[in-house]
Formats: sequence, structure tokens, C-alpha cells
Amino acid sequence: VVQVRDVEALARMESAKIEGKIVYFSARMERARDGAGYGKTVAIRTAGPSAAASKGALAVVIRSVGTSNARLPHTGTTVYNIGSPRIPAVAISNPDADLLERQLAMGKPLVLQVNVTARDLPQTRSANVIGEIPGTDKAEEIVLLAAHLDSWDLGTGALDDGAGIAIITAAAHMLKDIEPKPRRTIRVVHFANEEFGLSGSRAYTEHVISSNERHALAMEADVGAGPVYSLESRVAPEQLALIKQIWTVLEPLGVERGGNRASGGADISALRAHGVPVMSPRLDATSYFDYHHTANDTLDKVDPKAIAQSATAFAVAAYLAARVEQSWMPLEGGS
Amino acid sequence: VVQVRDVEALARMESAKIEGKIVYFSARMERARDGAGYGKTVAIRTAGPSAAASKGALAVVIRSVGTSNARLPHTGTTVYNIGSPRIPAVAISNPDADLLERQLAMGKPLVLQVNVTARDLPQTRSANVIGEIPGTDKAEEIVLLAAHLDSWDLGTGALDDGAGIAIITAAAHMLKDIEPKPRRTIRVVHFANEEFGLSGSRAYTEHVISSNERHALAMEADVGAGPVYSLESRVAPEQLALIKQIWTVLEPLGVERGGNRASGGADISALRAHGVPVMSPRLDATSYFDYHHTANDTLDKVDPKAIAQSATAFAVAAYLAARVEQSWMPLEGGS
Repeated sequence: VVQVRDVEALARMESAKIEGKIVYFSARMERARDGAGYGKTVAIRTAGPSAAASKGALAVVIRSVGTSNARLPHTGTTVYNIGSPRIPAVAISNPDADLLERQLAMGKPLVLQVNVTARDLPQTRSANVIGEIPGTDKAEEIVLLAAHLDSWDLGTGALDDGAGIAIITAAAHMLKDIEPKPRRTIRVVHFANEEFGLSGSRAYTEHVISSNERHALAMEADVGAGPVYSLESRVAPEQLALIKQIWTVLEPLGVERGGNRASGGADISALRAHGVPVMSPRLDATSYFDYHHTANDTLDKVDPKAIAQSATAFAVAAYLAARVEQSWMPLEGGS
Repeated sequence: VVQVRDVEALARMESAKIEGKIVYFSARMERARDGAGYGKTVAIRTAGPSAAASKGALAVVIRSVGTSNARLPHTGTTVYNIGSPRIPAVAISNPDADLLERQLAMGKPLVLQVNVTARDLPQTRSANVIGEIPGTDKAEEIVLLAAHLDSWDLGTGALDDGAGIAIITAAAHMLKDIEPKPRRTIRVVHFANEEFGLSGSRAYTEHVISSNERHALAMEADVGAGPVYSLESRVAPEQLALIKQIWTVLEPLGVERGGNRASGGADISALRAHGVPVMSPRLDATSYFDYHHTANDTLDKVDPKAIAQSATAFAVAAYLAARVEQSWMPLEGGS
């Protein structure tokens, strides 16, 4: 076993030190409200296996990309590069990673046996589920509420992305009561297959482009149950005043004003790249990565108060986005 | 599946409702600093299987007797009564118990398949590990520091009872430096087999009785890493002033004065029943039952600051117990 912090550290190592060995990636994800630790660490899972394979490693073991202290490993996408051997790659929980590191630190020869029973199953047919409240005088302009139906298989997906589905669906339900005939069309899309390659999002975006549908603004809920702590955006600079107006209404819910560099989320990223502006009520991710993509993603982790606040924030934001007089301008140059 | 809260609720039910069914015990353990929720709930595990079997149940499933929200079940002693069939008995984690209850609440027929692979292994030989700092003018009076070496097999036993072993051993190590020649003998016993019938404790107690060894006072650490929050005791009423003196020294460590009804702990309970007084620095158990007897009982759960305070509290208490002029009086009538 060779311990390496991350993919960058591996890149600096000679192949001779890696060949015929199991590579263990030790980088630990940091806890943060915005979940930024995930993006900083996840490359050990996505890119680590092929990077190690290209230097002759036999297998890869990583410290789970999560903040949990439970002995339940984290899973997620791994990308095997064409041309690198598809070597076995597994994640171990944080406590087990600690144990392995203590054993490695003792400096004695360590034999690690990796037994992988995972296998690829054939693809199957799935579908996006779409509902909308048709608009009136601006009906051809669509305000999109996005979340995804699928989940990693270890848990039940209550947080990822059951909570997101609940938030946008509850928000639409509230809107139907408050404003059954909105100016712009409010469309709720439950995307298929976010986790395994965004094929639901791609099919939807292709449809949008080919049918010339006009998406005024997109919002996505895919970071757990909340609460919403900040309103970020990615809109044309001329429209920041509009976002500020919407934020003023959200402020009493405890929502801060965030920046204008929002990514929005995975399922709407293709739309954003195509110029659709994004409004992003940010969900508090402090504890999200204790459960995300593990067996522990279950309904008891959803705080009813937090998710009620989140649904309300999404409803208010969508209500105002659909109602404002000014048109939402496409982003220049896309994402 | 028949859902029943606990053994008392089962006792009130007719056998006709239980016969041929799987009994699910739903009682949920409460979190508390003194860990009292464990004693209130654990009967579903210890007595539940035989109680259900005596009414014709096929198997027992219980909600884990613990406070964790991790999807890791809790284990521990089950007592099969002679005369009741030894039916399979398993625990499921709190999130899985929640799921089962939601499904039962839907009122539809529910089939539960119980697959148990546990088996009894033959007994093996083990040993108590004993060390002492010999006393001087009161050497024949022993101040006992107790903890246990064994653990349930799912985790590594870092908290139960690695932490206790560390606390009493570190305490003795401090004492050796501070007072290499104490008045009373300070004896550290690492007990074998606390978990599976207290045979280490029984063998030790039999030795104490047959050899007429005089145990002045006993202290045990077996509720995790601490910190110590209270000094309880079970001493003759005339000696409460002595306990108060010792507590005064511990108070700056954040230790409250507890009552005089301490049980002391499992490994010293036979000594206590034999009249040995008990001093009990209580370890904070607020999070202990998140990890106790599960795969999650690992070293990362030990807070270095808390365990350092605990070891110090045990050292101070043992130092004073070994040093005071007044003799420790046996308890009347034992436990």
C-alpha cells in the first residue's frame, strides 16, 4: 500500500513507487455550510483510479469523500479514462481510513486485500417527470424548478435528492394555491439519472434547444433539506437589482444575499451553459455530507422545520421570478 | 409482524396475537448524560426474545438499544430462558426501525424475512490483567481501579471499554509519579469477559473472598471516555464527609457532587454486593450510546481532552482514597 494525499500529489510521484501497489488516497473532506469541501476533495474518487492505473497501480482505496464519523463508506461516480486499465477502486469510511493510516504510520509491511463485488448492470429506460402551472401573458417564458429522482443505491436517497424533489414540488403546490394563473409558466422537472451521467438533463436540454422553448430562469434543489441560508444568482449584471428585490422578500426567512457566480446545480448546468440565467437559494450543507451517497441517507435525516423553510423560500423566489414585469435576459456566453 | 412497544406491553397481549408471528419491539432509547435510557430500554434485547418465544413468536426484531442515527445496528447480551424456544433475535438500526414502523403504519400486509448467520463459538481461556502500586502502612487495604479488556465484536471497542482501560491505567501511571509509595495499595485490574457473563469479575471476587483480601474501596471506568461530570458514591453514611472532602478537590475539574446510590459498574458489582464501598466518578454518557456495541465504536470517537480530564479525575480520587487516615468501612448488607 502506498499512501498519497490526492491526485496532485500522485502526479508528482515516480511510477516506480506506484507500480504493482495499492494506492491509498488520504485527503479528508472539510465540513462547511456551502459544501465546498466536496469539490476540493472529490477528485480522489473521480480521477484517482485512472491516475493511479496510469502509473501501474493494482487498485485504489480512498478515504470516503464525506464528513461522517460513521463506519459507512461513501460512493459516487468514478471516471475510467480510455487507455488506463479499469483497476478496482473502493472507498473506506473515515474511521477505517484513520485505522489504516495509523497502521501505515507504524511503518511495518501492510497487506491490504481488496475484494470488490460491484458490477455494471445493463442500462434501463427511465423518464423525466414534468408538471407545470401554465402562465398567462408571459406563458411562453418558463421558470424552471429542478431536482432529481434517482439516487445512489446504498441509502434511500431521502436527502439526495428526495428532499430536493419535496422542496420544488411543495413549492409548486404552494404556488398553485397562491397564484393559480401566474404570468410566466412555472415548470417542475423531476430529472431522471442525475447521478450516473446526467442523461435526463441532457435529453431535456436537447428538447429545449430543438423546440426553441424559452427558459426565463432556472432554480435547482439538490443539496439536501436545507434550510436556505443565502440567495445566489447568475444573471446579467443589469438584472442584479431584480435579484435584490426578490432577496428582500426572502430576508425575513433568514436568507443572506449571496454572489452572482452561482453554478445552480448539475441538472440545470447544461441550460445555464446555453444561456439560461440561474437563481440559487443555497441549502445549508453543514451536515449534508455526513449522509450523502451513504447507507445513512434516510428520512430521519430530514429536519421538517428546515425543509419547510426551504420549500417556502423556493416558492417565494419562483413566485416573484414568474411575476416580475422585466424580462429575464439570457446570460452572455453561457456558463 | 406484530409491533409491540416493550416486554411489559407484550405481557399484556394474548398469545393468539403473537403465535406464528415475528414480534417487533419498538421502544426507543432516550439520550441522557447519565445514560439512564439504556437501563429503561435494554429489556427488549435481554428479555424480549424469550418473552416473545413463550407466547409462540417465530422470531424477534428490535429497534437498536442506542441513540445513534447511523444505519449500524446495536448488539449485546440476550438471555434465553430455559423452557422457551431459542428463537432468532436481531436488532435493526434506528433509521431502519423508523422505516419498518412507517411501513407497518400503512396497514398493508408486511412480510419480513429474518436471516441470521450468528453462531455460538466454543469458549476459550482468557485472563484478568492485574498490576499494583504496593502500599506502605496500610498496604493490606486495596483501592481498586477497574475496567474491562473485552468488547463486542462489531467495533474495535475504543469506547467500551478501551477508554476505561486507558483512564484507569493512565491514572495509575500518574499516581506512580506523584506518590510512588502510597499508604494503601492501589490495584489496577483489567477484567476479562465483562460483556459475556462477567466471568473475569466472578473469578476475581472468588479469589478476594477465599484469600480474605481487604478491598477498601472500588472504582470502575466503563461508560466511555468522559469527561467526568459527577462524583457519586456508595459508602457508609458516616463516611460521606470523606467523600465530600475528595469531591472538593475534584470540583475545579467541573465535577458535581452526586448521590450515595452509585452502582459503581458491572465488574465491581460482585465486590459491592460483598460489602466493598464504591466511589464513582461518573463519565458523561450523552453520546456514548451513539457508538456503544456497534461497528462505530472506534478510536476517532474518543475526545482526547475529555479522556485526559477523566484520567485526572480518577487519579485524584484514587490518590485521596489511598491516602486518607480514616479507614474505609464495609457496606452493611452489601449491594
